Amino acid sequence: MKIRLRERAKFQADRMARIALAATPRVHLDLYALEPGQAQKVHTHDDQDKVYVVLEGRGRITVGAEDETLEAGDAVVAPAGVAHGVRNDSGERLLLLVLVSPPPPHA
Amino acid sequence: MKIRLRERAKFQADRMARIALAATPRVHLDLYALEPGQAQKVHTHDDQDKVYVVLEGRGRITVGAEDETLEAGDAVVAPAGVAHGVRNDSGERLLLLVLVSPPPPHA
Repeated sequence: MKIRLRERAKFQADRMARIALAATPRVHLDLYALEPGQAQKVHTHDDQDKVYVVLEGRGRITVGAEDETLEAGDAVVAPAGVAHGVRNDSGERLLLLVLVSPPPPHA
Repeated sequence: MKIRLRERAKFQADRMARIALAATPRVHLDLYALEPGQAQKVHTHDDQDKVYVVLEGRGRITVGAEDETLEAGDAVVAPAGVAHGVRNDSGERLLLLVLVSPPPPHA
């Protein structure tokens, strides 16, 4: 069953919203919805890889020593063990598709 | 390092083009670029999950008993063991981001 990604977006005034979309034994899909100024702090997963795909807007994504501005149509991979995070330093909403493999235990 | 997805697209006149973008031990990222009329036949992976994300255009994606038209901004998951395939039955180019977990042995 197809997922209309933008229709699933929900933004929260107080913090970044994470919307679970789908999961298999091998991969978990979320939307991250960030109002201007919101962020997910830089953190590291020891045994999960993460892929960010920007669907809408633009923001700064940190992966290891790199800190880049990504916009709609850009993607970046954060391998296990590499610190990563995202912040919306733009004036518009930022919507990301985020894939994590393997799925987090709590998902 | 960010990947500008659309800039990596290459279309082939004779068959669907598959462009490898990135891989980790857990996930492999491709672009699939399909001219009108091109397809990847329905097939099954016993032990890999696949996620399709439509970046541009529209096409028919089969997952098990479902055969749906997806367009830019839509995604669908084909879990291991479920037959899946894609065909561009539109008059425009179709560009997909495809994630496979775990990566195929030949990738």
